[in-house]
Amino acid sequence: MDFLQNNLIYVIPLLGILGILVMAVKSAWINKQPAGDANMQELAGHIADGAMAFLKAEWKVLSIFVLFAGAILAYSGSIHEINGRAIHSSWIICISFVIGAVFSALAGYIGMNVATKANVRTTQAARTSLKQALKVSFTGGTVMGLGVAGLAIFGLGGLFIVFLSIFADLGTHTIATSIEVLTGFSLGAESIALFARVGGGIYTKAADVGADLVGKVEAGIPEDDVRNPATIADNVGDNVGDVAGMGADLFGSYVATILATMVLGQEIDASGDKFGGMSPILLPMLICGLGILFSIIGTWFVTIKDEKSNVQNALNLGNWSSIIITAIVSFFVVKWMLPDTLVLRGYEFTSMNVFYAIMVGLIVGTIMSIVTEYYTAMGKGPVNSIIQQSSTGHATNIISGLSVGMKSTVIPILVLAGGIMASYYFAGLYGVAIAAAGMMATTAMQLAIDAFGPIADNAGGIAEMSQLPPEVRERTDNLDAVGNTTAATGKGFAIASAALTSLALFAAFVGIAGITAIDIYKAPVLAGLFVGGMIPFVFSALCIQAVGKAAMDMVQEVRRQFREIPGIMEYKAKPEYEKCVAISTKASIREMMMPGAIALISPIIVGFVFGPEVLGGLLAGVTVSGVLMGIFQSNAGGAWDNAKKSFEKGVEINGEMYFKKSEPHKASVTGDTVGDPFKDTSGPSMNILIKLMSIVSLVIAPYIAESTVNTAQKQDKIIKMEVQKTVKIEKVK
Amino acid sequence: MDFLQNNLIYVIPLLGILGILVMAVKSAWINKQPAGDANMQELAGHIADGAMAFLKAEWKVLSIFVLFAGAILAYSGSIHEINGRAIHSSWIICISFVIGAVFSALAGYIGMNVATKANVRTTQAARTSLKQALKVSFTGGTVMGLGVAGLAIFGLGGLFIVFLSIFADLGTHTIATSIEVLTGFSLGAESIALFARVGGGIYTKAADVGADLVGKVEAGIPEDDVRNPATIADNVGDNVGDVAGMGADLFGSYVATILATMVLGQEIDASGDKFGGMSPILLPMLICGLGILFSIIGTWFVTIKDEKSNVQNALNLGNWSSIIITAIVSFFVVKWMLPDTLVLRGYEFTSMNVFYAIMVGLIVGTIMSIVTEYYTAMGKGPVNSIIQQSSTGHATNIISGLSVGMKSTVIPILVLAGGIMASYYFAGLYGVAIAAAGMMATTAMQLAIDAFGPIADNAGGIAEMSQLPPEVRERTDNLDAVGNTTAATGKGFAIASAALTSLALFAAFVGIAGITAIDIYKAPVLAGLFVGGMIPFVFSALCIQAVGKAAMDMVQEVRRQFREIPGIMEYKAKPEYEKCVAISTKASIREMMMPGAIALISPIIVGFVFGPEVLGGLLAGVTVSGVLMGIFQSNAGGAWDNAKKSFEKGVEINGEMYFKKSEPHKASVTGDTVGDPFKDTSGPSMNILIKLMSIVSLVIAPYIAESTVNTAQKQDKIIKMEVQKTVKIEKVK
Repeated sequence: MDFLQNNLIYVIPLLGILGILVMAVKSAWINKQPAGDANMQELAGHIADGAMAFLKAEWKVLSIFVLFAGAILAYSGSIHEINGRAIHSSWIICISFVIGAVFSALAGYIGMNVATKANVRTTQAARTSLKQALKVSFTGGTVMGLGVAGLAIFGLGGLFIVFLSIFADLGTHTIATSIEVLTGFSLGAESIALFARVGGGIYTKAADVGADLVGKVEAGIPEDDVRNPATIADNVGDNVGDVAGMGADLFGSYVATILATMVLGQEIDASGDKFGGMSPILLPMLICGLGILFSIIGTWFVTIKDEKSNVQNALNLGNWSSIIITAIVSFFVVKWMLPDTLVLRGYEFTSMNVFYAIMVGLIVGTIMSIVTEYYTAMGKGPVNSIIQQSSTGHATNIISGLSVGMKSTVIPILVLAGGIMASYYFAGLYGVAIAAAGMMATTAMQLAIDAFGPIADNAGGIAEMSQLPPEVRERTDNLDAVGNTTAATGKGFAIASAALTSLALFAAFVGIAGITAIDIYKAPVLAGLFVGGMIPFVFSALCIQAVGKAAMDMVQEVRRQFREIPGIMEYKAKPEYEKCVAISTKASIREMMMPGAIALISPIIVGFVFGPEVLGGLLAGVTVSGVLMGIFQSNAGGAWDNAKKSFEKGVEINGEMYFKKSEPHKASVTGDTVGDPFKDTSGPSMNILIKLMSIVSLVIAPYIAESTVNTAQKQDKIIKMEVQKTVKIEKVK
Repeated sequence: MDFLQNNLIYVIPLLGILGILVMAVKSAWINKQPAGDANMQELAGHIADGAMAFLKAEWKVLSIFVLFAGAILAYSGSIHEINGRAIHSSWIICISFVIGAVFSALAGYIGMNVATKANVRTTQAARTSLKQALKVSFTGGTVMGLGVAGLAIFGLGGLFIVFLSIFADLGTHTIATSIEVLTGFSLGAESIALFARVGGGIYTKAADVGADLVGKVEAGIPEDDVRNPATIADNVGDNVGDVAGMGADLFGSYVATILATMVLGQEIDASGDKFGGMSPILLPMLICGLGILFSIIGTWFVTIKDEKSNVQNALNLGNWSSIIITAIVSFFVVKWMLPDTLVLRGYEFTSMNVFYAIMVGLIVGTIMSIVTEYYTAMGKGPVNSIIQQSSTGHATNIISGLSVGMKSTVIPILVLAGGIMASYYFAGLYGVAIAAAGMMATTAMQLAIDAFGPIADNAGGIAEMSQLPPEVRERTDNLDAVGNTTAATGKGFAIASAALTSLALFAAFVGIAGITAIDIYKAPVLAGLFVGGMIPFVFSALCIQAVGKAAMDMVQEVRRQFREIPGIMEYKAKPEYEKCVAISTKASIREMMMPGAIALISPIIVGFVFGPEVLGGLLAGVTVSGVLMGIFQSNAGGAWDNAKKSFEKGVEINGEMYFKKSEPHKASVTGDTVGDPFKDTSGPSMNILIKLMSIVSLVIAPYIAESTVNTAQKQDKIIKMEVQKTVKIEKVK
């Protein structure tokens, strides 16, 4: 125990490495699985090539952005000219930023790489049994989950050690400076996450909507038909949007949540602990690192017996195992690490209260998932109300979907508000942050469950395109249906953690910017709140408009191919898949710029022109409006989707049965199409938008604090912090 | 001048009475106009009866609410047990509340009464000339505008004098108590406004959507066809929603804006003026009272030469005349009334700066109107983008409309934020309030322009139903088209004034609740912000869902009548209009309860359970989210409507012309139907929701302040206020 105690800081990155190693083993296992016949492999090859082409195009643009933004960070000059000496940390924050960006891109790449291999292998496995198909697709998801979580913990933990040693001669400033520089890592990760999520989201929905509008509606051929020129683009989209985009997204979220807790932990006076006062800083990293281990354990439970087993139950068992083990272990970890009482900004709390705050986070996350499922699941009230209103046409279908989405904000917001109050009651702002961290601890498992869905979806597409026997498609459809539910609950989880995290980042920002309040009753702050609240609206508008535009380009290209290439419909000529892939790629790269720029630049402008308190108002506005728009759009989209899907088995409206191709079904297809960009482009971008803007603010906080707060005051504050930290540093080294 | 100076307080209600007198003259003129043939009069009679039936049903329910709420107010006990004596003001606040509610209902009634007379007289006038039709319909609108503004100024100014004399023996507390009691008047007015707007909005859209879905789409008969059983209900809806609802709405807004300025004015130390320090309190009432006078002058300019004259230009001339005269006169009024320097909560400003703040309000209002018009007008970019996207179907039409609505929030919010900052910069919180009051000063004119639209709309309906020659319908259509634009700009205006007013109410709330800040960085306040932000979402969901449900009932009734009453289609049998009227009436009364209850009860719960600062967070959340949802929904709805209307003259998409009954047109009808509840039910309710919740908070502020703030502290605060007020009271009496 003593050895562990003295070397805990080194254990953390090792947990990350453990995750990466297990990932490598599982990845190798995937590669060894049979990849089907030549036809299947050719189709899978098209998909993999298309996905890679997109990633390369995206990286090309993003590398320019990273170099540019990195240069600004490096150039921005020293921010630590205090006590008569200058500490040039800027080039280090630049490197930290670049590493964060590279790791985030890597996380997306790992996921996509394994997904484009696991898809066809899942199809092949589905030729034998559901059990095997689940095994392959879920292992694919696990690779991604472990890759994301492993890289994050390794990156955060490793860099923290490196920065501590770089800044070791700063004495009392060592820890504060190290964490400040670490925000660069999170900034890099979250920036890439935003572009990946938005770009991928536009790609996948442009291809999906475009393929459906001409293929299903005009040409009357089924989904994933090999004759549809946009079908490869559609399947590529699943990989770049739902896999690579989501991987980068969750990497960014995970890092931001942990970092926010570390920043607040740094302010806590915990000098009585056994870790040189560093326990509140190390705690979130350790719990999340252990979460990787328990996620690995959880994956052992995800298995089924035969064709009739319930896949959802298997996933739930794995998920709950990880969560419950994490909860139990965190009790002991908290007791072992933290001193009995802690104080943050005058708020005193016990170590047990920190544990209770973690429990609050887990409960909030669970309720959010359940509510999301209720509002989007087939057979429940909300989806049924959309089905009923489809009988009077397209318009009433849309009206009811919009109203379901808006109403679905009520319980999540009340739960979130309750969670904020409860975790704050238990352990102050640190409680709110650690609640979010606790919720995110089993990200590896969550992501495995999330990512297996698109793999199964792709596997179904390949089965359809290769014209395999129907039982193959049935098996993949079974997995895909479960994947749709897990995707919805995953979004509920993501938005809940984003809301808690951003409050923590908020609090961290206030601390660093040297302000004592964000008072909305001041007119300029309220003006900031208004502008902040507007940003999610314009961001969403840009996203869904981009999908609309790109889908129209796609429609025209598909129509052109049907017109100009004779023999496509008779399977005599192959469509030019790559042209559709190119359209989606180009459109998504072009259209992701503007929303990304708004997220990055608006806090900088507001912060420098109007000062930190107005920026605080802006952040609050973005957070509230973003959470609401995120829940509204994701749930409306999910509900429309499942209302449409319900017609496949037939639905009863006013005593009559309706099936596919009926008038109410056509109305439901309209709703589904409207919901597509809602649930897969703009909706899930909201949580990144919120956090990215908070992190940008955190990074610029020292600069705007200097320009608005009296320098003498600021020095005072730092010197005060110094007194606290002296003890810590000496003990730690 | 001296006489005026000493009796200024009596001049204000006289300005209100002037408005009411001119209204009576104009109303008598309308009555004298020819009302057409027997057939027309019969149809108009049906409409008037239906409208009256709705008002009666609504009043029945609302009178129970008013008695109940009034009893609570009366029972709530004395709130002025300070300095050793009790002042029982509660029964007076109850009476103030009841008068506000009655006046608000009266304002709606006056408007609806004249509208149901002016409609058929406009039809008759349109048989001779456009000039005469404009004259009749606009005079109808003027009656409503003058009625609303006149009642408001008379009520506010008159009650203020009465309360000052009732509380005269309170010495230093006289003014503060009088204004506090006056908030009851505003609470009554705004409560009725909310119910009238929501109830009327549900009524009109349920009838409209229901009539269209069966009539236009299924039976293939034109709008306003006498064979459609829902057509009378549809025309009644225009009166109860667009006229009575809007009248009560603007009455409430107008009163709330003036009151908020008075509350803040009361805190200003203006002891150097010639009105016993009361000038900042009297100023908003005087400017708005003069606004009535200048509105009357403005109406003289609203006239056209012949059939080819531009109606919009005539309205613009009248509108701008009133605004410019008001602006010029307010310069002199401000100079005359206010002392050279004023101080509010430590913020010092000159009287000229107050004038500049008024100018800011006028500019913000103007830009908001222009932007609203841009986003909803035919032939402009946003509406054209919806038309283009209608070519690929219902879904893309909806996607583009939603995206137009979301994007349309950007400029209004930036303008609003700029306006808040500028008016605050000039004259602190008083500046923000007086900016809103300046914007609302010409409400009489604004409302005349707004209300003439539905009158013309109804006139067209009567022309169609009476099968009059086509040139009659052309003339009313011309007026109706202008009315659609003025309705859109009116909404932009309403939301802008609501945003500014609610900030002022906010500030007033902070003062009375005895808190010094609303710090969103505190976790419970942020939780309040989240919950507040959610309320406009659930409110909107309930409104549009109510329309959807009621429209479906209507559809079923219309289908039943077509089925069970033979001969309707051959004009041989009359449909049972009254059954459709009853459905709309019942549904709207039933469905308005829940949203109304949420608005009234949530601030009370939050305030008493969590205290004033969390309630402040709630209010900020409602304000920001409500303004955004209001702009989004109103503009999306307006843009969809005009995209559909564009097909009547034909539109070009990708080089081809499309007209009514084409596929793109059908898609545009879907958008219009979705937009109906957006733009006429939930969207315009947002500004009332915001203000009502602020006023409720203001009314309960003294109670929750007592329970959370240290009593000693509160007494301190009041005693401090006392010192300021002593001078004022003695001079005033």
